[in-house]
Amino acid sequence: MADVIVVGGGPAGISAAIYLQRFKRDVLVLMKDQGALGKADSIENYYGIVEAVSGAELIARGVAQAERLGVKVRKEEVLAIEAGDGFSVKTAAGVYTAKAVLLATGMSRTNLKVRRYNDFVGRGISFCAVCDGFLYRQKKIGIVGNGEFMLEELDVLRNFSKDLTVFTNGEKLVHTPENVKIVADPLVEILGTDRLSGIATSTSQYPLDVLFVAIGTASASDFAIRIGALMDNNKIVVDADFMTNIEGLFAAGDCIGGLAQVAKAVADGAQAGITIHKHLKSIKS
Amino acid sequence: MADVIVVGGGPAGISAAIYLQRFKRDVLVLMKDQGALGKADSIENYYGIVEAVSGAELIARGVAQAERLGVKVRKEEVLAIEAGDGFSVKTAAGVYTAKAVLLATGMSRTNLKVRRYNDFVGRGISFCAVCDGFLYRQKKIGIVGNGEFMLEELDVLRNFSKDLTVFTNGEKLVHTPENVKIVADPLVEILGTDRLSGIATSTSQYPLDVLFVAIGTASASDFAIRIGALMDNNKIVVDADFMTNIEGLFAAGDCIGGLAQVAKAVADGAQAGITIHKHLKSIKS
Repeated sequence: MADVIVVGGGPAGISAAIYLQRFKRDVLVLMKDQGALGKADSIENYYGIVEAVSGAELIARGVAQAERLGVKVRKEEVLAIEAGDGFSVKTAAGVYTAKAVLLATGMSRTNLKVRRYNDFVGRGISFCAVCDGFLYRQKKIGIVGNGEFMLEELDVLRNFSKDLTVFTNGEKLVHTPENVKIVADPLVEILGTDRLSGIATSTSQYPLDVLFVAIGTASASDFAIRIGALMDNNKIVVDADFMTNIEGLFAAGDCIGGLAQVAKAVADGAQAGITIHKHLKSIKS
Repeated sequence: MADVIVVGGGPAGISAAIYLQRFKRDVLVLMKDQGALGKADSIENYYGIVEAVSGAELIARGVAQAERLGVKVRKEEVLAIEAGDGFSVKTAAGVYTAKAVLLATGMSRTNLKVRRYNDFVGRGISFCAVCDGFLYRQKKIGIVGNGEFMLEELDVLRNFSKDLTVFTNGEKLVHTPENVKIVADPLVEILGTDRLSGIATSTSQYPLDVLFVAIGTASASDFAIRIGALMDNNKIVVDADFMTNIEGLFAAGDCIGGLAQVAKAVADGAQAGITIHKHLKSIKS
């Protein structure tokens, strides 16, 4: 069991990992991709970087810095996190365990760009199979997504219904799941009056009782919701020590809100690294 | 008149200056030396710096970055700051004016390492000639220090008494002031029972009514106290926008307390840069 698993390899996650490593903690960083920062063309307002760098280059430097100090960084997408005696963190490659977890996956989830989407969030549109799947036993369940995260959610939903339709929204499936209907057309509009009653693609309409959204990669808020962490307006609520209401589950960076700047994420990470170290000391017994 | 004068060229001040410059604000950074960070041998926990760097090198990089973006950085020690219609900032080279000032001079003042020093702080040991000089009219006044800051304080004290003794505490005087006694011996002990009654050097004793401490460079807290900014336990009190109780006077970095790490100072600076820009917008009329 590691001391800490950091989910996310951007400024907040790597900054925390560096502090933890220097406290001689056994820390593992799991990152899928470069997130929002990786898409930034040019960063020139982050202190200490004389010449402007791309977001991708800054992330690469952070990873190199952490690895030079001995931090283990693995390019694996996290699919699920479970709290119990410590935490277990599932990726496509395996399951890792740790005494504490830091969520640092950046901005909250990608939303669907579909007409009337916002009208039905919480009224037939859900973001958490573990949370809401039970409400839709034997109902018509739709799930939108095309990657590992969608497959993970789908496996949970199989427990509740056999009437399952995957909407890839025009994207290519990473793996093709069995025993489900698959619709590849782009989504156009959510149907319904008070609640969602179905979905329209460019060519057809599909009646549904619920649509689970699992596009892209699971975000920090997706994980936080599943574990039962308090959220406020889609941001993870943390205390002054960057700990959520779940003992041992921490969050830092854009996923807790505040200024969406590298400088702020780095400072969050530094402070979270220090408080996680203190937390680990306090539970050592 | 500049938009903003930043006092201090470390991570907090330069980070703020970079943000302000990118908002097209006219910003001037005044720095004397490299402060506490400049003495750090090796920084390896600041995100994005792959190989460890010295504190001096990191500061140099920050200044180069700011200058590349068009920030004016001058190596001048700030001696006094006055609030009125905007702010006037005095250095040995001249007086600059600005609509807002950011204090980012790092750690609070250097204290004297002399026996029984702590017993008499606030009981005959003072840190502000403008604040307390009036209390010691025609009394025996001592002042400890050897640089520009001491001379500035001394000039204020001349208004209140002619019985002035400068204690250089073994240091070399930058300029030799006239019409004062000068004692070059190292200080050994503060004398007194309830209140300070004098000072002992390695060779003699000197009766005094008050000792003003003005060693090293004036710190952010020295300036803040003089202007009337609220302090808490030697840290400058700021609101969520990094503004002190004095309209237009901001502070960021180590001088406001919190984690004494580069990452935190940089984040402070970024956020203060943004809120100072907003403040300037609000007073534009």
